[in-house]
Amino acid sequence: MTPSELNKPVVVLKFGGTSIASPNLIRNAAQRIARCRSEQKHVVCVVSAMGDTTDQLSSLAREVSSNPSRREMDVLLSAGEVQSMALLSMALTELGVPAISLTGQQGGILTDDRHADARILRIDPARVVESLHDDHVVVLAGFQGTDEQLEITTLGRGGSDTSAVAMAAALEAERCEILTDVAGVFTADPRLVSSAKQISTLSYDEMLEMANLGAKVLHGRCVELARRFRVPLVVASATEELPGTRIVRKVESMEEVVVRAVTDDRDVQKVSILSVPDKPGIAARLFSVLGDQGINVRLIVQAQSHEGHNDITFIVSGETLMEKSNLEAVVDQVGGTSWIVDDDVALLNIVGEGIQREPGVAGKIFSVLAEQQINLDLISSSNLVITCVVKEKDLARGAKALHDALIETDNN
Amino acid sequence: MTPSELNKPVVVLKFGGTSIASPNLIRNAAQRIARCRSEQKHVVCVVSAMGDTTDQLSSLAREVSSNPSRREMDVLLSAGEVQSMALLSMALTELGVPAISLTGQQGGILTDDRHADARILRIDPARVVESLHDDHVVVLAGFQGTDEQLEITTLGRGGSDTSAVAMAAALEAERCEILTDVAGVFTADPRLVSSAKQISTLSYDEMLEMANLGAKVLHGRCVELARRFRVPLVVASATEELPGTRIVRKVESMEEVVVRAVTDDRDVQKVSILSVPDKPGIAARLFSVLGDQGINVRLIVQAQSHEGHNDITFIVSGETLMEKSNLEAVVDQVGGTSWIVDDDVALLNIVGEGIQREPGVAGKIFSVLAEQQINLDLISSSNLVITCVVKEKDLARGAKALHDALIETDNN
Repeated sequence: MTPSELNKPVVVLKFGGTSIASPNLIRNAAQRIARCRSEQKHVVCVVSAMGDTTDQLSSLAREVSSNPSRREMDVLLSAGEVQSMALLSMALTELGVPAISLTGQQGGILTDDRHADARILRIDPARVVESLHDDHVVVLAGFQGTDEQLEITTLGRGGSDTSAVAMAAALEAERCEILTDVAGVFTADPRLVSSAKQISTLSYDEMLEMANLGAKVLHGRCVELARRFRVPLVVASATEELPGTRIVRKVESMEEVVVRAVTDDRDVQKVSILSVPDKPGIAARLFSVLGDQGINVRLIVQAQSHEGHNDITFIVSGETLMEKSNLEAVVDQVGGTSWIVDDDVALLNIVGEGIQREPGVAGKIFSVLAEQQINLDLISSSNLVITCVVKEKDLARGAKALHDALIETDNN
Repeated sequence: MTPSELNKPVVVLKFGGTSIASPNLIRNAAQRIARCRSEQKHVVCVVSAMGDTTDQLSSLAREVSSNPSRREMDVLLSAGEVQSMALLSMALTELGVPAISLTGQQGGILTDDRHADARILRIDPARVVESLHDDHVVVLAGFQGTDEQLEITTLGRGGSDTSAVAMAAALEAERCEILTDVAGVFTADPRLVSSAKQISTLSYDEMLEMANLGAKVLHGRCVELARRFRVPLVVASATEELPGTRIVRKVESMEEVVVRAVTDDRDVQKVSILSVPDKPGIAARLFSVLGDQGINVRLIVQAQSHEGHNDITFIVSGETLMEKSNLEAVVDQVGGTSWIVDDDVALLNIVGEGIQREPGVAGKIFSVLAEQQINLDLISSSNLVITCVVKEKDLARGAKALHDALIETDNN
């Protein structure tokens, strides 16, 4: 049986760990699923581990081992999702909704063998389709799969969202809802900009930029997958039944709204490698060394320091900041004299499709920040985003001023 | 590769939940395993869930469901052993001992599909043998397996011990050690009889009787399996490295020691079905009705009540005591007039091979109990055990007196 032979559209609902952190929340989630099913849909729920289960398991691991193997960490952590899927399935049955829980393996999620950071190779949804055909709600463990040797793997950051989107793609689902502890995607971080508003619709490209630029609500990886397989995504509150933010291929809007959001990212470093010989291919070598170290470079600037030598400055972000040993290796490889690291920086990102082409926007950004006497350390722009590197202390003020000037005035 | 091609003998060590209830205890267990391995053995460890994990998971289940399905309970509980196997494997690696954890499925434990009470159909130890051949310690999740549809099953009572013995049989292991929170099998419950001593060697048959007669240290099911496949069993303390109790095919002893132990069981009911028509096959029907209800009958006595009618009295023990609805069904099926249940009874069992043939023993039992003015409600005897049904209040006194008279004097 193939997904297209199912008699009702499929909806995938993904519940994050905070949304099922207690028996009470699990019962709430079950009620929401039951309502979705009563709208003549087949429902697949993808679950994370309950609340802080993953942290608790990790801390047990650290108590027995200074350096637990990635394989055994995957085995250990996989137990978290198995617990929550069984409990949610029980809560559904209690409501009279036939349900069945499936592990990553049972759900047909085949990954490569990179423990703790596995990639989904393919999904064989036969068992899921069969269970849906039997009119069961399928509760699937997110974040996990097995490789060809039946070894248990986990998907790393953004793993459960990625499981949900991948399963939605495999099932040709009508939509995939990421249900979480925020109401949707906002025009700025509401903790930073109190007037931030929820965005009703975003394009994949906009969401992808925002995810990669510090909007924590979705991981870039799952947005990328949704874009590739054209899975309509919804980000919404798990507890309140409100529309949330829809992420679709193309935002349909009579008026082209230029600036969609101002996002911020404090979790960055500015690194300068000084006096690097100006030879062809040096930037390529730098990127390749950083890539080997798993370091994500956001922005790179070369400036001549003295005859035949450049200072190379770049912004490193997110999960993998640079340590001294990494820096030494980089200096060694590209032939610089020394390095400087500045942790007291942050990124302000102004996001919107076509933002670079829109003449007034960049100018407006710079004048707003100048009015606030905020110094711009570095600037980069792309079709979708203008990024300003500022001092961390200026971040909140800058975000608020840009939001007021660029978004408050728009009919977002 | 088959087990017989391995270059060192295999020892299976089973750790109960209390023996790995904390990171500290897990590290201790790892050290013990490392010592066993350093004696030129291949080691397979079978683990239960840590401490009260199973209880915690069950209580979560009850919070989301009044009647959780057996399938989902199996999924939920299986996560407990998966956690402990990963942690023990990490602790071993931390000691420099190469180790790998395997789920029931990965360990090749194929069961039938009776969720919550599955029976092992067969074991395909290929993956375990291969890991041992690679000189790894294998840490196997006890209590769980999968059926032919790859559904997760659990083995019910005594499940982890059963996993350990079954794997030992499949691997043709030198021995299977059940490591627990007691030092071995005792001549009586030390809480009841302070002079109780540890038994150094028992036969399978003796151990089986004792297990079925209230000795909580081993479940009859795993002893039966050990007997069938002639797996030498050891019951010993998980924390102190002492010899424990060996359970073997035949106790080798110059002098035949007749009475091995006095065991007790308070967890019993005496049930009488009154005025049952005396027709052929009525006892068979009674047994079959009780069997259908999963009720374990220990002892059955028919006595004529009036012409053509008998009172049938039996002892029900252990996990499944009788409830009113069961009793009504039984009365209905065998055609009695009413029933009486007495919860205020207990069993005293005197265990030893050939005890029935040994003339003096039964007489001595009765005279000891008579001296203590303990009334015997019912008596049964077999080749291995003499069982006396007494009032619960007389249990401790009776056990102590019998132990003094029958065992203290022996060179046990």
